[in-house]
Amino acid sequence: MAKWTIQLDADGLNALMLSAFPAAERNFGPVTHVEPGRISVVQPFNPGMLRPGELVSGPTLMSVADTTAYTLILAHVGPELMTVTSALTINFLRGARKGDVHADGELLSLGRRMAVCDIRLWTESADRLAAQATVTYARAMPTAA
Amino acid sequence: MAKWTIQLDADGLNALMLSAFPAAERNFGPVTHVEPGRISVVQPFNPGMLRPGELVSGPTLMSVADTTAYTLILAHVGPELMTVTSALTINFLRGARKGDVHADGELLSLGRRMAVCDIRLWTESADRLAAQATVTYARAMPTAA
Amino acid sequence: MAKWTIQLDADGLNALMLSAFPAAERNFGPVTHVEPGRISVVQPFNPGMLRPGELVSGPTLMSVADTTAYTLILAHVGPELMTVTSALTINFLRGARKGDVHADGELLSLGRRMAVCDIRLWTESADRLAAQATVTYARAMPTAA
Amino acid sequence: MAKWTIQLDADGLNALMLSAFPAAERNFGPVTHVEPGRISVVQPFNPGMLRPGELVSGPTLMSVADTTAYTLILAHVGPELMTVTSALTINFLRGARKGDVHADGELLSLGRRMAVCDIRLWTESADRLAAQATVTYARAMPTAA
Repeated sequence: MAKWTIQLDADGLNALMLSAFPAAERNFGPVTHVEPGRISVVQPFNPGMLRPGELVSGPTLMSVADTTAYTLILAHVGPELMTVTSALTINFLRGARKGDVHADGELLSLGRRMAVCDIRLWTESADRLAAQATVTYARAMPTAA
Repeated sequence: MAKWTIQLDADGLNALMLSAFPAAERNFGPVTHVEPGRISVVQPFNPGMLRPGELVSGPTLMSVADTTAYTLILAHVGPELMTVTSALTINFLRGARKGDVHADGELLSLGRRMAVCDIRLWTESADRLAAQATVTYARAMPTAA
Repeated sequence: MAKWTIQLDADGLNALMLSAFPAAERNFGPVTHVEPGRISVVQPFNPGMLRPGELVSGPTLMSVADTTAYTLILAHVGPELMTVTSALTINFLRGARKGDVHADGELLSLGRRMAVCDIRLWTESADRLAAQATVTYARAMPTAA
Repeated sequence: MAKWTIQLDADGLNALMLSAFPAAERNFGPVTHVEPGRISVVQPFNPGMLRPGELVSGPTLMSVADTTAYTLILAHVGPELMTVTSALTINFLRGARKGDVHADGELLSLGRRMAVCDIRLWTESADRLAAQATVTYARAMPTAA
């Protein structure tokens, strides 16, 4: 499917994220794979992710979903950093057992104004999803010059 | 992926839907394909689906998404007709040009109480999605005997 | 709260909807009340709304939510008919008993590009909600002349 | 409206949250007000909440929305700690300027299995919402004894 092309590869995205967001502020799971329409991110486990019951917390999964969508869009449009989350819907499907958080993102649409992504989250295996999120980003609108 | 098994195939689902929902009440697009975790439905075009601009209306797409999720779940649990929609989120991705409405459903989770489905809707080609919906159904809870 | 002003009152909206959408295509519940930031719509009961169990069907509620959001936005921006639904999330809260469908809409934000509305749906009483929907509309973008 | 009654007041909720979730793991904004069907929470500002542009980050708002819904439900059902988030939809309405994050929650439905809440988030004034979230919690299901 050649309808989208990559503007920033995994290395480019990781470098961009680290320079734009100081490490102290955000634990950013590196992008491990990019191809047209798709991305994979792995957020390494840390104990601060857990809630009682030894499960990864909802806010952790929401944050990873949001960042994954952001990098998926930048992969296709380049360093358009002012792109902001417009809406996010997440369904928690089963408890996310302790471990690295894997996120697989798919671009559903990419317009001039909006982009919509489907994000699948898991810790144990891609076959046992912990959550699915649909994330909408509003692209930065060029100001009238 | 053998984690789910089919209880009702396409013919069984179509027969069930026609008997449970009188034809006059609902234009039901037949199920055309079922496999573990997945379903395809095609709702034939009729002019009542259109809104101004010759595009398929939002309510039509929402209704097809809902029915597709319902049949996807029944395919896996059998004729549990009292299963009801609990939540639906739909993102409209681009105008749906006039034509049959195709819906491809994927089961994301199937628990004792809830089932969550991802539904992709299109008219022109599967490569140009008109909408994506995430639909949650609450399964009928057996009453205490 | 004077942050929004009304461009079209209930009579104006009802006349606009009837002229823009031929009656045969859509059962449009009249707008009964408009004030800055809020609207009320009542969709009269008809038997085609029911699903088994004598409850109002999910697609009926989704359609009323969508139309209520549309008229709420037009009330504030005037006859901008090319405004289209961008996303809709509905939570079904309890079975909607047979009867007129009441929808109370509240404008949450109104920007140049997007508008977001909260819609509450009920049949028995406003105190017993059947569903809540959040509906996002994309406003028509003026084309470069 | 007397359809719901309070089982835990603001002081009771704050004490419960602090004992159940060690302070190190979560910055928990205290509950400031509870009444049947409603709650208010204020999460004090800290610089870690900000993203570039001096705005409160999306993950911060999502986390506050989630916690507010959780405490709103516990206020009505008592210390049912195993209640877990089932779904969350958030719409970002405008940039949240730097400041304490206020969350006003309303209970939309409370059933044996599920509870649904509407959460409004703001920093500047309740009249300028930064985000609206609809949060669904699945109540702990008693295990067969």
